[in-house]
Amino acid sequence: MKDDAYFMELAIMEAQKSLEEGGLPIGSVLVKDGEVISQGHNRLIQNDSVILHAEMDAIENAGRLNYEDYRKCTLYTTLSPCPMCSGAIILYNIPKVVIGENTTLMGAENFLKINDVEIVVLDDIRCRDLFLKFTCNNSEIWDEELAKVGNTTEVNDGNYCNR
Amino acid sequence: MKDDAYFMELAIMEAQKSLEEGGLPIGSVLVKDGEVISQGHNRLIQNDSVILHAEMDAIENAGRLNYEDYRKCTLYTTLSPCPMCSGAIILYNIPKVVIGENTTLMGAENFLKINDVEIVVLDDIRCRDLFLKFTCNNSEIWDEELAKVGNTTEVNDGNYCNR
Repeated sequence: MKDDAYFMELAIMEAQKSLEEGGLPIGSVLVKDGEVISQGHNRLIQNDSVILHAEMDAIENAGRLNYEDYRKCTLYTTLSPCPMCSGAIILYNIPKVVIGENTTLMGAENFLKINDVEIVVLDDIRCRDLFLKFTCNNSEIWDEELAKVGNTTEVNDGNYCNR
Repeated sequence: MKDDAYFMELAIMEAQKSLEEGGLPIGSVLVKDGEVISQGHNRLIQNDSVILHAEMDAIENAGRLNYEDYRKCTLYTTLSPCPMCSGAIILYNIPKVVIGENTTLMGAENFLKINDVEIVVLDDIRCRDLFLKFTCNNSEIWDEELAKVGNTTEVNDGNYCNR
């Protein structure tokens, strides 16, 4: 059956593909009416792209959808979405996000919640392990990224919207 | 002198370039230490891109900057930035945004403000005229976009962060 576990499996495969390419192991799948319409993964290392996070890559790969189509979508992502990706989800009125894990890095989940986006966190240990495997083996790259986007961790306290 | 008016002029030139390409006339310029480091414009029509808004295009074209570089940047944009672009500004800790106008479409300015991003609105009639010129001549495209991102207008009430 095509349930959350099934689609998260596909997102994890995207993350693994990115890892094999030498990139950040974060994957995403966009699902409409129970069918995958696009997939994506982080392209920071591979394309030197600062905007092609996994979720952005999946949203871009889906092409130009109309409002009704976006409203039928669920976005699956292996890691809690950052403010940019959360903003894209809100911009296009995607109503539901399923997150692999949010313990290694908490994104802008509060921003999603207060904009009526339904959030499901699967606490999938495979997403966490993939991510930690990369950050342990590529601490310089990751330290650079964390220094850059360091305040995303503050979202844990809802600071994106409340400070 | 290279002041806000000077850099907004460059952003308007980017918007005009997009209009000449048949695209949405929204332009952006990223400035670091008083020098332009990248420029961009909306690529929805030209590239069928749903993520390359003007601001995103400029941020992407600047390449991979470090935290200290982003902290020295000001982003100029002819139109108030949407939730996605505002999220990118917050993600990369860009401290200041100069906006051409926000009367035709109000973006996620409240989201920027509560994350300590300084906002300057120039109320530049040229930005408004360029934008209205496009929307009047391309009402179908614009109606489609508005239907998709209709709730951005609600940001006017701070709803992105308060509802």
